[in-house]
Amino acid sequence: MDALDAIFQRKSVRNFTGEEVPKEKLELLLRAGMAAPSAVNMQPWEFILVTNKETLQSMADNLPYAKMMSKASACILVCAIPELAHRKLKDYAIIDCSCASQNILIAAEALGLGAVWTAVFPNIDRIEFVRKLLGVPKDVIPLNAIAIGIPTGEDQPKDKYKPEKIHYEKW
Amino acid sequence: MDALDAIFQRKSVRNFTGEEVPKEKLELLLRAGMAAPSAVNMQPWEFILVTNKETLQSMADNLPYAKMMSKASACILVCAIPELAHRKLKDYAIIDCSCASQNILIAAEALGLGAVWTAVFPNIDRIEFVRKLLGVPKDVIPLNAIAIGIPTGEDQPKDKYKPEKIHYEKW
Repeated sequence: MDALDAIFQRKSVRNFTGEEVPKEKLELLLRAGMAAPSAVNMQPWEFILVTNKETLQSMADNLPYAKMMSKASACILVCAIPELAHRKLKDYAIIDCSCASQNILIAAEALGLGAVWTAVFPNIDRIEFVRKLLGVPKDVIPLNAIAIGIPTGEDQPKDKYKPEKIHYEKW
Repeated sequence: MDALDAIFQRKSVRNFTGEEVPKEKLELLLRAGMAAPSAVNMQPWEFILVTNKETLQSMADNLPYAKMMSKASACILVCAIPELAHRKLKDYAIIDCSCASQNILIAAEALGLGAVWTAVFPNIDRIEFVRKLLGVPKDVIPLNAIAIGIPTGEDQPKDKYKPEKIHYEKW
């Protein structure tokens, strides 16, 4: 798939057929995540790949806006590690992991998969739930839970271009 | 260009020929930025497109790690607006703008351009410098200054894949 098409066709997919996503495609998504840039190339990220149905159902039941996990084939949790980030700053860890997440979303579109970012950080309750469910250490911040599956085709991209959001030369 | 190739071939390009980038390509980069996802679709971003040579030179002279601006054809500043973000949270504004920035970087690669994210936020001095230079309001956070130009070909992608960064099912 063409890169610009993948960027413009990417959408938040919340409707999955329930079919399985091949393991090789999931690993390609993780590779895409790790290809992101990071401040001073510190790569302050780790990833949890969940395919266990009970775990996905538990996320569907306990994370608001994550009901689609019950029909997802997998979930990638992108975890930010401030300790590893440039100047050990949480902000850089979050920014770098956001770029990794966006790579995963575009790669999913390119592979014909559906994906949606469901936020964990900065919501304390969700962070605590994910920490407990998946054994995430205290010094690691689960940024999001990206649901991944085969799209039904119901979800469509939005045109969000707004020329008034561009300033030329100065604000 | 293939989407996965664009993701894996994307690199921080700091060496530019000095040639001009056509305006249509710069506008396509901005469109790519606005195609990013954002929390509750709030799109808490605006963009400044700088092509003025004196302004680019001033950034090269005053922002550390932005020396390449002197040979860049343009710079896009991605600006985060907490006031517009979901629950008016700065964190969401920064995350959403990071995704928009990553779209810009991938689109640049796809268009045969070179680009590099130079950090502004969270460094207070750099934020203040950019605010003053470009008239950015107090409630708007310049996240970065993305240098854009025609690549000389010197900069090459890194393989950053580390399987030990993947946890299966649990941390």
